[in-house]
Amino acid sequence: MALVEEIPDELLPYKGRLSKRFYEARQQVVDFIKEDVLPALPEWNRQRRALEKEAGHPTKAPMPPMHWTLMEKAKKRGIFNFFLPEVCGLTVLEYSPIQEILGTVPQANYAMNCSAPDTGNMEVLEKFGTPEQKRKWLEPLLRGEIRSCFAMTEPGVASSDATNISTRIVREGPDYVINGHKWYISGAIRPECKVAVLLGKTRDDGPRHSRHSMILVPMDAPGVKILRPMAVFGHEHDHAEILFDNVRVPASNILLGEGRGFEIAQGRLGPGRIHHCMRTIGQAETALQAIVHRVKNRKAFGSMLSEKDTIRQAIAEARMELTMCRQLCYLAACVADEKGFKAARAYIGMIKVAAPRMALKIIDEAIQIHGAHGLSQDSKLADEFMHVRHVRLADGPDIVHLRTIAKQELKREPSPVAIAISGENKNIEKYGFFSKL
Amino acid sequence: MALVEEIPDELLPYKGRLSKRFYEARQQVVDFIKEDVLPALPEWNRQRRALEKEAGHPTKAPMPPMHWTLMEKAKKRGIFNFFLPEVCGLTVLEYSPIQEILGTVPQANYAMNCSAPDTGNMEVLEKFGTPEQKRKWLEPLLRGEIRSCFAMTEPGVASSDATNISTRIVREGPDYVINGHKWYISGAIRPECKVAVLLGKTRDDGPRHSRHSMILVPMDAPGVKILRPMAVFGHEHDHAEILFDNVRVPASNILLGEGRGFEIAQGRLGPGRIHHCMRTIGQAETALQAIVHRVKNRKAFGSMLSEKDTIRQAIAEARMELTMCRQLCYLAACVADEKGFKAARAYIGMIKVAAPRMALKIIDEAIQIHGAHGLSQDSKLADEFMHVRHVRLADGPDIVHLRTIAKQELKREPSPVAIAISGENKNIEKYGFFSKL
Amino acid sequence: MALVEEIPDELLPYKGRLSKRFYEARQQVVDFIKEDVLPALPEWNRQRRALEKEAGHPTKAPMPPMHWTLMEKAKKRGIFNFFLPEVCGLTVLEYSPIQEILGTVPQANYAMNCSAPDTGNMEVLEKFGTPEQKRKWLEPLLRGEIRSCFAMTEPGVASSDATNISTRIVREGPDYVINGHKWYISGAIRPECKVAVLLGKTRDDGPRHSRHSMILVPMDAPGVKILRPMAVFGHEHDHAEILFDNVRVPASNILLGEGRGFEIAQGRLGPGRIHHCMRTIGQAETALQAIVHRVKNRKAFGSMLSEKDTIRQAIAEARMELTMCRQLCYLAACVADEKGFKAARAYIGMIKVAAPRMALKIIDEAIQIHGAHGLSQDSKLADEFMHVRHVRLADGPDIVHLRTIAKQELKREPSPVAIAISGENKNIEKYGFFSKL
Amino acid sequence: MALVEEIPDELLPYKGRLSKRFYEARQQVVDFIKEDVLPALPEWNRQRRALEKEAGHPTKAPMPPMHWTLMEKAKKRGIFNFFLPEVCGLTVLEYSPIQEILGTVPQANYAMNCSAPDTGNMEVLEKFGTPEQKRKWLEPLLRGEIRSCFAMTEPGVASSDATNISTRIVREGPDYVINGHKWYISGAIRPECKVAVLLGKTRDDGPRHSRHSMILVPMDAPGVKILRPMAVFGHEHDHAEILFDNVRVPASNILLGEGRGFEIAQGRLGPGRIHHCMRTIGQAETALQAIVHRVKNRKAFGSMLSEKDTIRQAIAEARMELTMCRQLCYLAACVADEKGFKAARAYIGMIKVAAPRMALKIIDEAIQIHGAHGLSQDSKLADEFMHVRHVRLADGPDIVHLRTIAKQELKREPSPVAIAISGENKNIEKYGFFSKL
Repeated sequence: MALVEEIPDELLPYKGRLSKRFYEARQQVVDFIKEDVLPALPEWNRQRRALEKEAGHPTKAPMPPMHWTLMEKAKKRGIFNFFLPEVCGLTVLEYSPIQEILGTVPQANYAMNCSAPDTGNMEVLEKFGTPEQKRKWLEPLLRGEIRSCFAMTEPGVASSDATNISTRIVREGPDYVINGHKWYISGAIRPECKVAVLLGKTRDDGPRHSRHSMILVPMDAPGVKILRPMAVFGHEHDHAEILFDNVRVPASNILLGEGRGFEIAQGRLGPGRIHHCMRTIGQAETALQAIVHRVKNRKAFGSMLSEKDTIRQAIAEARMELTMCRQLCYLAACVADEKGFKAARAYIGMIKVAAPRMALKIIDEAIQIHGAHGLSQDSKLADEFMHVRHVRLADGPDIVHLRTIAKQELKREPSPVAIAISGENKNIEKYGFFSKL
Repeated sequence: MALVEEIPDELLPYKGRLSKRFYEARQQVVDFIKEDVLPALPEWNRQRRALEKEAGHPTKAPMPPMHWTLMEKAKKRGIFNFFLPEVCGLTVLEYSPIQEILGTVPQANYAMNCSAPDTGNMEVLEKFGTPEQKRKWLEPLLRGEIRSCFAMTEPGVASSDATNISTRIVREGPDYVINGHKWYISGAIRPECKVAVLLGKTRDDGPRHSRHSMILVPMDAPGVKILRPMAVFGHEHDHAEILFDNVRVPASNILLGEGRGFEIAQGRLGPGRIHHCMRTIGQAETALQAIVHRVKNRKAFGSMLSEKDTIRQAIAEARMELTMCRQLCYLAACVADEKGFKAARAYIGMIKVAAPRMALKIIDEAIQIHGAHGLSQDSKLADEFMHVRHVRLADGPDIVHLRTIAKQELKREPSPVAIAISGENKNIEKYGFFSKL
Repeated sequence: MALVEEIPDELLPYKGRLSKRFYEARQQVVDFIKEDVLPALPEWNRQRRALEKEAGHPTKAPMPPMHWTLMEKAKKRGIFNFFLPEVCGLTVLEYSPIQEILGTVPQANYAMNCSAPDTGNMEVLEKFGTPEQKRKWLEPLLRGEIRSCFAMTEPGVASSDATNISTRIVREGPDYVINGHKWYISGAIRPECKVAVLLGKTRDDGPRHSRHSMILVPMDAPGVKILRPMAVFGHEHDHAEILFDNVRVPASNILLGEGRGFEIAQGRLGPGRIHHCMRTIGQAETALQAIVHRVKNRKAFGSMLSEKDTIRQAIAEARMELTMCRQLCYLAACVADEKGFKAARAYIGMIKVAAPRMALKIIDEAIQIHGAHGLSQDSKLADEFMHVRHVRLADGPDIVHLRTIAKQELKREPSPVAIAISGENKNIEKYGFFSKL
Repeated sequence: MALVEEIPDELLPYKGRLSKRFYEARQQVVDFIKEDVLPALPEWNRQRRALEKEAGHPTKAPMPPMHWTLMEKAKKRGIFNFFLPEVCGLTVLEYSPIQEILGTVPQANYAMNCSAPDTGNMEVLEKFGTPEQKRKWLEPLLRGEIRSCFAMTEPGVASSDATNISTRIVREGPDYVINGHKWYISGAIRPECKVAVLLGKTRDDGPRHSRHSMILVPMDAPGVKILRPMAVFGHEHDHAEILFDNVRVPASNILLGEGRGFEIAQGRLGPGRIHHCMRTIGQAETALQAIVHRVKNRKAFGSMLSEKDTIRQAIAEARMELTMCRQLCYLAACVADEKGFKAARAYIGMIKVAAPRMALKIIDEAIQIHGAHGLSQDSKLADEFMHVRHVRLADGPDIVHLRTIAKQELKREPSPVAIAISGENKNIEKYGFFSKL
């Protein structure tokens, strides 16, 4: 069968950057979703519910057998560990539209071993791990046998300012001893989770960004106490509250060396943020399409909803904002590909703010237009809303990202015209924007 | 001197579409602005003011001699009639960033013979004019000797719905006789304006979009009565109110034929809208840079404005919105280049709404941050604000463009996932966006 | 102990309308909350959780014993059935600030027998019920022995346009036979719920607002099939989906007579909406105070959150919007007291739109400022958010209320000055708002 | 003729606070406007235009003879110096709705000698002036013979932080010598303006709020150099830029004493701000009514504008926001009446932010709905827009008032429920806003 090389208008600017591999990979993922994942979902969900019942608590249930079946199918299709550049063979940009598709079918992402926070952790281990660390943790992660978590956020401090992180990592002879309190550690509660990448403090003095370190902590180490699952909007998730109570790990578990925690953290957040935003955009796109579907099928006050001016205006505004946001994401990906993630920092900050904000607006509008149905268990709009709202806090609240953007902006030199407009340059004649000509 | 091929991050996605000619043309325009236009501005403005005084009324003054000097310089640089594809040699996309630059120096645009509404009129004449029409009107326009206007808007009806246009064009023997009342006809009041492209009604029955025609009306034809200049925010401009009182023109002045007015109108608005939006973006960019300049130079309540969280947040939001809007404009240009203006219609509608809205927000913020200075004659921020506010109405109010976007959107078929989310497809298992895994 | 007659600034305008009874009643309710309800909450919740576990499903659990204890205490204090004018002795306005207090302690409202939808149903029975209907249903409701539901919303149609309601009520001899499908019927799932006030269609022709009727349906009537609890944001509530399958009730169960459904519905929604909004305002007030508490106790990026400009601005905006909205509610109550609910219709429409919108904004801001904690089970902010979001749909979406407001507005005659400004009155000299004097 | 005691719904809450005098005074003002001012407007404007022409510059023209005629009529009606409590006999609250009426007819306000900044200056002189100062300046001001200005804002500093004011007032023997640069000094350019109340610095050390003083400066004192009229949106107004170049005034011209400038400034801004906001509300009200008028008289896309959902929604939103804002103004006035201006400070800050913001939104919407007409000289909407936009900066930008509100808010003690919600009080059981009951 011939490869479909069609692309939507929104990708048109990037056509020249889309390799043959992109069309092929996209086809592989779409085929996997259509042929393997969607047909398996009813059974997947049924098994999951049974396991949750058995475990006595949803978050403690293991993955359903169907997950492993799908994983095997993903392996056969060659898209297992798809996030790895050597598997997918894609640029950050090319990977983006595929993540948009995956945004609405998380089960496919699980089966492809592409879930957060494992992908980020695997990237860290790949980049900074010792051969021993790789053998012990990276390899089973890459085989999909175990999972991992990233232990950063703490309950007692404003963790958005990471220099507030106060968990102690103290060297004692051949070991490090860890004491601290973490929460909202995603994935930690799963039975498959075997290791934590933990951020803590190794010293109290010296430069503020050299006091923290990252270290590997096996989840079964004595003193790792999972206190409870944390809820989001009242739903308990696999986000755990964890006490690290005199946890002792070998000194060789440190990543890269003492004081290099922020250095690793920065590298960790690159492509993940972009692709996370693309999944959010996928959810917004689906919500907008759901609106379109709904309004063509409902009548009120004498005409179809699709005939109402207000509804049409809401649809147009939603499409406009969504399109702008998607182009911004592509731009961030493109800059990252060409100039690296550091150069793309301001753009990544922008999408981290803009994508969930836009998606929440559209999903909220979709809920309103769907009426009671939109809040009900029959639609997934309410689920989406809660998920995306949580995204506005996860990985840093808006305010932190806006700081980053502003910092970059304040470094730029205003043009002479701008200075003239600002009125400080008396040597230049002012310009006639509103000239009477 | 070697050509500068540097591009800002925002153009990076389009690098592959930027020909050698783009860098060259951009350089030509920038050199023209820096070397010829900016140094001439003080004299340009002084001459203009003198002529306005002499004419007794600003809008009746002819262009200042310096304009003609600059025009000669533009000709020498080979950028006269730059808007013509055969002169600039650029795609719609490539032309866009250059228009952004020109957005803040309208005098350069005048000298390059690239001002609205002449460019649109010349395009219409080029595309649809008879040899006779071209010889009589297009050629002197292309030589920059005369100017033209586009007579569409009427005071008594909602002209945003163009089918409301009620000026009559009636065939009488070898002539057409025109009766009607127009206003806000930009440029009509200038002494250089010699011809109007007029939209009127040739019949009252038949399909609603085949009742109108376009016709060429010499401004000196008996019965063309310029009643007064119309004001925008209290400033009288070259927008005229005109009475067409039994104006008689030869039947050969009709464009393309009776009933084809909307057909021509549609073709007329293509690249102009995109480039107009780019100029608006240029004004927003300059306003944002003016903010940055200001806040680095002012102190209040104990610290520099640039150190205030609120100011930084405003700057970050402005940069984010501006970047999204610019990418949307590039997208519209790119789709127009590849698929034509009809295919780009929804995107062009989006930028017509998004660009002035974004620019107004940023300019308003700039005014607020500049304090009294921002409203004063020493800055041009207030001028910009009035100009861009007027753009929200010119060439159709937002509401008309939102209708276009919604119409396209309602034609799209929702995906099965969207239908599942909307809750109407009971055959598909719902997806777990917020699954507890 | 002397009665506390202090009032907050926001009530100052209404001081002359606050009777001695207001201060007394407010004191009674506050004392009840402080002395009886708050101390009982831990036990209340513990009992409830045990009963939920026992029932196998939260929504099927009966009220906890502590509820009945509190009910006895409310009776002793003379504030049982507090919503009844003859019990509380308050105007709509006076009742409002007390509802604001109750907005954050729903258990007190339950114990005072003041919960929706029972209050509305009791008012309807009181106003329109026959002696027989009153004896059978109103009396046990007033004793707090049973509860009721209001069966209006239907899943298949846009119920915001109530003329779409399609459940059939057909006369057959001495009975009415009811067939239809309802959902989101609040309270229906509770074991205490014994009767439904149902809105259905008794004829298909005649004036559109005379086709519907209200009828009393015992919940244990054969054919009343509770299909499932409906969820809001994934939490199953006591909102039921119900099938009315050939349900037969005596003809005497009709309320007021055939075709008078909308007449009753209109009367039903008066004070309830105002007081509902006041409870929403109470939740917003609490969220704002929670913000203030938080920011005085957290540090980030070198200073207390309370010192940040952005945080201060958010607090000021929240206080401003909250104050405006509260004054609007008081106005609606005051107009209702003086001129009746029909005259207050536009104001009631306004608060139904404004209060949840404002509250959602403040609660959302509170979540953002509280970080992960704000979304967690340790705070109640997420609960509040879900509740208030649901309120934006319950009892009519915004769009329906905005229609009501606009309808009233379009009836008003513009002043001559407004007509002059609009430009249609050529006989009046225009006014100089921006006159140069 | 019987007094009309009717009041609109919005004043209903305050009925008990409206004295017989209120109805009488309102009637007097309305009669004055209807019988004297409106009929005189055409002549008033004609005279004014002639004087402007004669003066060579609009802002240098004296008041037209018709102004003095109207002033005599106002005197005869007993409403001259109406702002004085002993003339109007009204509370701040009662004065408010009358100011709303006057908001659209500034010529009436002039004739009643109630224009800013004179009213504020007269209040200051009344309150703090020596008998000599009163005789010399207050008396002619009260007779309407001269006018005054308030010289505070400076071009080189952020004047919103008044401690930045840097004009020097230095004691030299029996005199003070003043050196400084002021701008946007409203009214200073009028020929009738004879005295300035100037804020300057008398010392550089000591507490920051005791360094500034107020002093009376005759406009004809040597060294007072009016440099130019300052423009707002390109229109030159009577706001002057003034150089104070070694201006020498007798030491007795100081107000209240050295270092008491801020003390006076604070007292100065009380009722003025409230009434200014009421005038802004009057302008918004008129704009909304203009919308209503327009949409009942225009057709587009097949139906009257008044039938469009989007238009109706815009109207409803406008009415809602306007009503909320007006109630907030009344609240501020009421608190000021009962507790004084200091206690009302936060409310006055709120209306200073909320009223212009709301009015701008409505006027902007009115412009958009009126199309080209809305921007033209035939409507006054554009004038209103410019005026109200300028108000957002005059007398302090939003950001300064938001600071005041936040400061008050942060002083309030959160309730125990709020602390529980915020999650810090572990001793209180959390409350069930979203309880499943």
